[in-house]
Amino acid sequence: MVRTILAEGGRAEAVATDTTREDDVARLFDRAMTAADDRAPADLVVFNAGNNRRVDFRELSPQLFEEFWRVGCFGGFLVGREAARRLVPLGRGTVIFTGASASLRGKPGFAHFAAAKAGLRMIAQSMAREYGPRGLHVAHVVIDGGIDGERLRRGVPALIAERGEDGLLGIDAIAEAYWQIHRQTRSAWTHELDLRPFKEKF
Amino acid sequence: MVRTILAEGGRAEAVATDTTREDDVARLFDRAMTAADDRAPADLVVFNAGNNRRVDFRELSPQLFEEFWRVGCFGGFLVGREAARRLVPLGRGTVIFTGASASLRGKPGFAHFAAAKAGLRMIAQSMAREYGPRGLHVAHVVIDGGIDGERLRRGVPALIAERGEDGLLGIDAIAEAYWQIHRQTRSAWTHELDLRPFKEKF
Amino acid sequence: MVRTILAEGGRAEAVATDTTREDDVARLFDRAMTAADDRAPADLVVFNAGNNRRVDFRELSPQLFEEFWRVGCFGGFLVGREAARRLVPLGRGTVIFTGASASLRGKPGFAHFAAAKAGLRMIAQSMAREYGPRGLHVAHVVIDGGIDGERLRRGVPALIAERGEDGLLGIDAIAEAYWQIHRQTRSAWTHELDLRPFKEKF
Amino acid sequence: MVRTILAEGGRAEAVATDTTREDDVARLFDRAMTAADDRAPADLVVFNAGNNRRVDFRELSPQLFEEFWRVGCFGGFLVGREAARRLVPLGRGTVIFTGASASLRGKPGFAHFAAAKAGLRMIAQSMAREYGPRGLHVAHVVIDGGIDGERLRRGVPALIAERGEDGLLGIDAIAEAYWQIHRQTRSAWTHELDLRPFKEKF
Repeated sequence: MVRTILAEGGRAEAVATDTTREDDVARLFDRAMTAADDRAPADLVVFNAGNNRRVDFRELSPQLFEEFWRVGCFGGFLVGREAARRLVPLGRGTVIFTGASASLRGKPGFAHFAAAKAGLRMIAQSMAREYGPRGLHVAHVVIDGGIDGERLRRGVPALIAERGEDGLLGIDAIAEAYWQIHRQTRSAWTHELDLRPFKEKF
Repeated sequence: MVRTILAEGGRAEAVATDTTREDDVARLFDRAMTAADDRAPADLVVFNAGNNRRVDFRELSPQLFEEFWRVGCFGGFLVGREAARRLVPLGRGTVIFTGASASLRGKPGFAHFAAAKAGLRMIAQSMAREYGPRGLHVAHVVIDGGIDGERLRRGVPALIAERGEDGLLGIDAIAEAYWQIHRQTRSAWTHELDLRPFKEKF
Repeated sequence: MVRTILAEGGRAEAVATDTTREDDVARLFDRAMTAADDRAPADLVVFNAGNNRRVDFRELSPQLFEEFWRVGCFGGFLVGREAARRLVPLGRGTVIFTGASASLRGKPGFAHFAAAKAGLRMIAQSMAREYGPRGLHVAHVVIDGGIDGERLRRGVPALIAERGEDGLLGIDAIAEAYWQIHRQTRSAWTHELDLRPFKEKF
Repeated sequence: MVRTILAEGGRAEAVATDTTREDDVARLFDRAMTAADDRAPADLVVFNAGNNRRVDFRELSPQLFEEFWRVGCFGGFLVGREAARRLVPLGRGTVIFTGASASLRGKPGFAHFAAAKAGLRMIAQSMAREYGPRGLHVAHVVIDGGIDGERLRRGVPALIAERGEDGLLGIDAIAEAYWQIHRQTRSAWTHELDLRPFKEKF
């Protein structure tokens, strides 16, 4: 990713961060918010960490339930809080949280995932209501469908074929939607939108 | 509006239409969907008809309740149905319905408005679930806040001042959001999003 | 129904009413709210009118769309308004509106039904927010599933068998739920609840 | 509580349990599900653990965010899972989770509370969808308003006076609502309902 951006003449830097650790998150923002010769402080933060897996509810271990929460919700809190601390005083910026259909609905086998994602959504909502009027645009995107990326291409190649063209969410298309959220003028901000492939049942 | 577009070298034509009359709606689509030297058939339909006014529930006349429904919901059905008839066979196009916070919530004094708007939202949802997989992008936009247009500027000029810069929804900003919905590739379509000024309480 | 109640020593009277006609609704309330030797004024109003049928959206006639709205939403407005007029001054009473899963969600083939039911729900919500603090309990019940009544028993007897015991909503069970809503003390009122057979997928 | 029940001739036993510890929860169910001379195995489980407090989001410590989740969501998972393990094989029983308006909506100063409560709601929903068809009734109750109990009576006595009669949720009224959920026959189960004092703004 970074290589692609640099190759096209852009500027980018990857900072390996464990989003479930307060120190790591602070360090990431230290790096991102410090202006230098070659860059301005960041003004778009995307929290995209996540994982997903069906697990039978009665077999779900406390450790796994906690792990899903830590990655999907707690990390979002740490990143959201740090973003608010850095951006609210500047009166500008955008924070986008990646949600899922499970943010809105709990299904058999996905209690752990939905519990984390619904929690993350509440963080986004609380932040939007508090910091929107102070100039920070907080949005939550409900991703509904499989993503046409490495994980599915490697893990379930048959799914790609079965869904057909545009049957999975294109990564560029998701990125474009996030970018449009960031570009919105503050007289008409979106807090929540869904994204799904045209064929996806909902 | 048409004059502005033409002056800037674009092509536009206003067709006066009563959206609550089946014949009128058909005639509008006849005009819009017929290719001619100077234009291609339409592929973006926006249903934007609406009105709003607080009325005490116990004083609400059946006539007024019906009128709100006819403009806000029934007209949306006629337009949505005609759009589906014309666009689904082509396997392309976008239909956007303008909603309001009342699409999701009924408040004292606005039962008539909310009943119409919530009904319109269901039309949009039913259409999206049915025609999305056939290539027609159907979206519903929840407008939450006052619009910085002629009606408020003339009717309640004090409100404009009170809300301050960007405190009302900019018309261009709304149009831009609609345009971005239309531009989405079918691998990541939005069915619903909200738009509100950054200061708006929600 | 009336005969059953009378036979068991209760008091009941059926008043044939077209809920879509203002005069009829007023007459019903005149009758129900007038105390007489054998009865006290009513304090529980249930709006239960409805119909349902799948219709292809592009084949849906304006007449049918309107008819569904008139029975499912407009009649609810007339009844709700009349109930508010009679009961709010008394500072007591309960009004319950019967909803459906379509009150919350629009599916292919049911745009007309969902548009009416979602509108009815907004009436209930607006009323609850306005009149609850004045002592009128307004509730909305989301019925999700088939009802084990004459219509299904005659129309689709196979469904009854297929669903098995308790696979459809029992009428007495629905009535009991409504009764419990009416019995709630005002320190803990329910505005909305769902009712579905234990087997129903949701 | 136990003393009151015993004094009135009932049977009750309090088992001090840390709902955030797997072993403790298992021990509680061992006790509750074992028939003995004086009792039948339990068939109604209520998860009611919770706390609430406004905390500024940017001052929210990771420890506090986690603590709210552990009490409000993780404990609910442990109790829900254990209840499912014990009751699903029996094909009967009821599990009720206590929610709050924050289960549905995140407000400034309550991100931690809403994140926990929304997560708990997803657990309830996932369980209901999975175990309802197998005979376990899972419900979620949205408590919206202050509860007329010891905490508020001691902590903010002025609030009690300000709200007036029935202005806070009566504990008996809540208990009655839970009892009615448990009593529902499986042909018409409620998964979610709200409870609020008649005066409560919503």
